[in-house]
Amino acid sequence: MVSLTPNPSYSVSLLLELPNHAGTLASVTQAIADAGGSFGQISLIESNLKLTRREIAVDASSSEHAEKIIGAVKALDNVKLLKVSDRTFDLHRQGKISVVSRIPLTSQSDLAMAYTPGVGRICRAIAEDPEKVYSLTIKSNTVAVVTDGSAVLGLGNLGPEAALPVMEGKAMLFKEFAQLDAFPICLDTQDTEEIIRTVKAIAPVFGGVNLEDIAAPRCFEIEARLKKELNIPVFHDDQHGTAIVTLAALLNALKFVGKAMAAVRIVINGAGAAGLAIAELLKESGATDIWICDSKGIVGKHRTDLNSKKQSFAVDAEGTLADAMAGADVFLGVSAPGVVTKEMVQSMAKDPIVFAMANPIPEIQPELIQEDAAVIATGRSDYPNQINNVLAFPGVFRGAIDCRASIITTTMCIEAAKAIASLVHSNTLDSEHIIPSVFDNRVATTVASAVQLAARNEGVAGQ
Amino acid sequence: MVSLTPNPSYSVSLLLELPNHAGTLASVTQAIADAGGSFGQISLIESNLKLTRREIAVDASSSEHAEKIIGAVKALDNVKLLKVSDRTFDLHRQGKISVVSRIPLTSQSDLAMAYTPGVGRICRAIAEDPEKVYSLTIKSNTVAVVTDGSAVLGLGNLGPEAALPVMEGKAMLFKEFAQLDAFPICLDTQDTEEIIRTVKAIAPVFGGVNLEDIAAPRCFEIEARLKKELNIPVFHDDQHGTAIVTLAALLNALKFVGKAMAAVRIVINGAGAAGLAIAELLKESGATDIWICDSKGIVGKHRTDLNSKKQSFAVDAEGTLADAMAGADVFLGVSAPGVVTKEMVQSMAKDPIVFAMANPIPEIQPELIQEDAAVIATGRSDYPNQINNVLAFPGVFRGAIDCRASIITTTMCIEAAKAIASLVHSNTLDSEHIIPSVFDNRVATTVASAVQLAARNEGVAGQ
Repeated sequence: MVSLTPNPSYSVSLLLELPNHAGTLASVTQAIADAGGSFGQISLIESNLKLTRREIAVDASSSEHAEKIIGAVKALDNVKLLKVSDRTFDLHRQGKISVVSRIPLTSQSDLAMAYTPGVGRICRAIAEDPEKVYSLTIKSNTVAVVTDGSAVLGLGNLGPEAALPVMEGKAMLFKEFAQLDAFPICLDTQDTEEIIRTVKAIAPVFGGVNLEDIAAPRCFEIEARLKKELNIPVFHDDQHGTAIVTLAALLNALKFVGKAMAAVRIVINGAGAAGLAIAELLKESGATDIWICDSKGIVGKHRTDLNSKKQSFAVDAEGTLADAMAGADVFLGVSAPGVVTKEMVQSMAKDPIVFAMANPIPEIQPELIQEDAAVIATGRSDYPNQINNVLAFPGVFRGAIDCRASIITTTMCIEAAKAIASLVHSNTLDSEHIIPSVFDNRVATTVASAVQLAARNEGVAGQ
Repeated sequence: MVSLTPNPSYSVSLLLELPNHAGTLASVTQAIADAGGSFGQISLIESNLKLTRREIAVDASSSEHAEKIIGAVKALDNVKLLKVSDRTFDLHRQGKISVVSRIPLTSQSDLAMAYTPGVGRICRAIAEDPEKVYSLTIKSNTVAVVTDGSAVLGLGNLGPEAALPVMEGKAMLFKEFAQLDAFPICLDTQDTEEIIRTVKAIAPVFGGVNLEDIAAPRCFEIEARLKKELNIPVFHDDQHGTAIVTLAALLNALKFVGKAMAAVRIVINGAGAAGLAIAELLKESGATDIWICDSKGIVGKHRTDLNSKKQSFAVDAEGTLADAMAGADVFLGVSAPGVVTKEMVQSMAKDPIVFAMANPIPEIQPELIQEDAAVIATGRSDYPNQINNVLAFPGVFRGAIDCRASIITTTMCIEAAKAIASLVHSNTLDSEHIIPSVFDNRVATTVASAVQLAARNEGVAGQ
């Protein structure tokens, strides 16, 4: 059993009552450390001559691990565990986003301008000149985050309600990183035509549509149709967001190991939305030797079970993922936890690049291949080189919406990837820094500028 | 031509440069006053020995009137008009609402809890126990404000984009008055089945649905079906919100003139969504003599052009609105500007009650019948006795959502009306104070409590 590093997603908050004398806190921290917990903040809540109350945040690696840590604290003499709370659950109570007013509403005069009767003048102005919906309403800054809940993170078909926390998170990220107002639309249907019809029906309010966690192959048809039938940008983040950030990271990883895109053999494990989009974007960026694997092994020309998307990438080879990886330069995993072994990485070409991006648990734990791979990246925030879509989608939408692009093209995606890669300078590029931090505040604006420029060059900008 | 009182919906902001000596500002204010403008704030922007710059907010009664005022200022010697802006349009730029994060997102640890990988634990928890969507997402505090743009205010079928400013305003009101998060859904379809299907498809995110500005008779079918097919409260505000506040105001107006609900003859002009809903709620509240008029006159049993809703209110009479009003005790207008004359009001019974609620311009200007009517109310915020739905819908949804009501019943509506009426005490009740101010902060909580109690009594509360 692979053991994960303790991380904030399994973080507990322990409220403790301790005798107020030297050494008691030390005994607690020692017990937690012995149990493998990792400390966050330790707060002093109150203290008197006899007792102190402290709240300690502890990261664990799993729910079971958290239980073990709690058990270790409970076993201590003199220490009273007053309350245990799960920080991730606490943070989600009543949801993560809110709709607020941008202007005060405290007098009759405010009300008469923002609502009836004044608002009627604005309605008439838009009815007379429909373009004004962009200047007089929220449309020009608002994105729909649309899912049918059929492919929630790496967890599968959990349905629209269970997908909502992810969509709320996405809306937070849109705000935090691109000052866009995004709202979750979780659809109670998984029918392709019904999804297309619904998104078109709600489109008037939105300046863009971010499709999210919709299963393949349905997602391809949905995106293609909406791109064609709506005049606002539509972007399936699981495909293109992932592809953009993967390309950005790969550009820098190749630079670091001194190999050329056109010269490397790339293995992509996972032939769903993300895998196929990555393959397409890499091909458009000059990659010439891409092998895709799915759950049945290498997507080869011999296969008779391939959809047309997969067929277009079929290679003259057959075998398992292990067969594909032998001698390959690059492994890009968008598949499932633990499907790659240390031996498979050791069978790769010199200076192998391994992006194990399955979420929340990677194809292989980075700890296991520190010595074997030249560059390792994951989808997680608690390891170096996080391939996180948040590096792409906020800037992509900011750029596309600001220039009123009617569509997001492949060129716009490639330019976004180059913009992200460009933010890691040669003198800071190393095996653990191939991609900027998600908190690098240059990222979104740099991506937005690149996307906007590309849109203008391609003639898809509306203003 | 009826001239309206200057009001904030036609408010301009004038930036002026004046010589800095005594009397110049006075000449400007005199000129504006002579032109019939009404002053809002006058701000000193900057001043030096020679010049001052001031910004003056002036309410006009129409766009033409605003132009006249601007002309009067321009005609002044020594006064330079640097900039004119329309305050209502300024306030609407880029929209009136925003989506914000409820929690900070400033560290890797925040990100790992609110988004991947931590959020996956929340998704799984909801997938395992669907009820948890209420405690771990925005659902329990979120309302969809849904329109098809077919009956925007009193302005008609302006379409979904032109309806958006109203829906944004509604979302502001939900937040301001009931701390609910509401989001506008403006549908690019006016097909009944398509609207029903779309609202059902997007329902997972929402704890309630407020239907708005959807034309009759389509709105009846849409509301009825959604009430039946969804397990969250659905409420067509144009019907029931208007009916609740009208009933509340009428309860107090009748008290003021000393007449009983069961004893008065009531004329309702307008047989659309609002008019029929008012008729129904009044009937359920003890009214026995209700005459409805539509554009063809009295809705009488002789008519062959009536839909079933109208038929159920058909009376043994025929004629025009004027015929109906002769001798009536109460006039409730939810129709069109200027359709009532002073003579028609004078033909009513002693101490007539006139609610001229057409928006934005009433059936008759209150100025014209000050001496003739015992009580006058309108839908406008710039006259006394504003029949404003904002007195009802925030509290109705707050109450219904807090007790997880599956439906909003007629009894819940009647209790809401009584709660609103109860806030005007006997010793303050007079002809200009039959209903609380929309800024009376007791209203929403009082309504919410009454609605919640009624839901529990009726057995439709879910928790």
